[in-house]
Amino acid sequence: MQTRREKLRAASKDEIKTLARQQMAAEGTAGISLRGIARDMGMTAPAIYRYFPSRDDLITELIVDAFNAQSDAIAAADAPLPRAAYGDRVTAMMLAYREWAVAHVVDFQLIYGNPIPGYEAPREVTVPAASRVFTPLITALTEAYAAGVLHPPVEFLHLPATVEAHLRAFVETQGYPVPPEVFAVGVHGWNLIHGMVWLEIFGHTPPLIGDSAAFYRHQTLALCRSMSLTVGDL
Amino acid sequence: MQTRREKLRAASKDEIKTLARQQMAAEGTAGISLRGIARDMGMTAPAIYRYFPSRDDLITELIVDAFNAQSDAIAAADAPLPRAAYGDRVTAMMLAYREWAVAHVVDFQLIYGNPIPGYEAPREVTVPAASRVFTPLITALTEAYAAGVLHPPVEFLHLPATVEAHLRAFVETQGYPVPPEVFAVGVHGWNLIHGMVWLEIFGHTPPLIGDSAAFYRHQTLALCRSMSLTVGDL
Repeated sequence: MQTRREKLRAASKDEIKTLARQQMAAEGTAGISLRGIARDMGMTAPAIYRYFPSRDDLITELIVDAFNAQSDAIAAADAPLPRAAYGDRVTAMMLAYREWAVAHVVDFQLIYGNPIPGYEAPREVTVPAASRVFTPLITALTEAYAAGVLHPPVEFLHLPATVEAHLRAFVETQGYPVPPEVFAVGVHGWNLIHGMVWLEIFGHTPPLIGDSAAFYRHQTLALCRSMSLTVGDL
Repeated sequence: MQTRREKLRAASKDEIKTLARQQMAAEGTAGISLRGIARDMGMTAPAIYRYFPSRDDLITELIVDAFNAQSDAIAAADAPLPRAAYGDRVTAMMLAYREWAVAHVVDFQLIYGNPIPGYEAPREVTVPAASRVFTPLITALTEAYAAGVLHPPVEFLHLPATVEAHLRAFVETQGYPVPPEVFAVGVHGWNLIHGMVWLEIFGHTPPLIGDSAAFYRHQTLALCRSMSLTVGDL
């Protein structure tokens, strides 16, 4: 149980983060200023530093919140589907990646966009949060591979030796029971959907293709089918 | 011939743009300030406005310069190759897309990254500049299609009706003699390489795959081969 004091502290931190998100929306992700937030809250500058010792601590918490929100959205898309419906699960998670981005453009910029000048992410905090986004997708691919129904397109096999060695070490360290080629397919998919989302939400591809949501859906289904995954009536 | 007066004016504009790029590198793309540049140049604020009436005019020129530099790099990669080496041409241009981005991270952020708060691009100026990047790639795909050697992967055909209708209208208006499916393959390729570059240069995928340059090359070759394009010993 939270004490009243803890509840008040959590409420103040939430208010600070809400104002920081408004600053980012108005001024860009580099526009966060603890002094500005303190002023808006009628707080002294020293008082706000009791909640966040520095601007960078606030940014780190906002980044972790955003990664968690995106990975929660992806996990929620995966959860209700039958475990053996691998293609549907992968597709649903890729659709959730876009839907979250479209609905949270500022947070998307914060976690994937232009670096904030002067900010250095504490990787021991941000990397696990970032990995949570990617993990459920790799898990579904791993399970599909174990079930023998995932076959990466032949053109995308035969990785360069440097990449294969790195991936092999990575999947062993992280405990993903997949060969490097399958993990590489996951990275391929991430690159594709990330590029689609990015070029859509900042206005580059909509003039070319028109219905970005339909194109995105088509591409994710095509990607699954190119890996021999069956996709139902999502 | 430029008069001496015109040369001096061009040199001053170049100096202003150089300082603006330094501001972006230090403060982010939203950090451009004409007053700051005037101060650094020992110029009065009214004097600098004779070169750029507003911050937004300066940003627009920087954007056009960056798009032009990227499309020049892509066109230069295409130019020396035999016209009928379609796969080599497409691969070389995709490699140039990444190479330019890696070498010009700040300009890449400026043209594709987080929007600059308060800045509204004059689309009649920026869209043609942006299109120049994409045009040589579509031209090579168009020529490969006309030669009968380009076959989009079957999974990526059968576009949604809304997208197909939009693309059909777009290619007709723009004068690209390709069916919507071929143009869509170009958009697919752009999305893929853009996602790869973005997730690489801002540190998301290098921990997973290690040798980003080799992975990128592998993916671009695989993409060409998945379209039945032959790639030589690039």
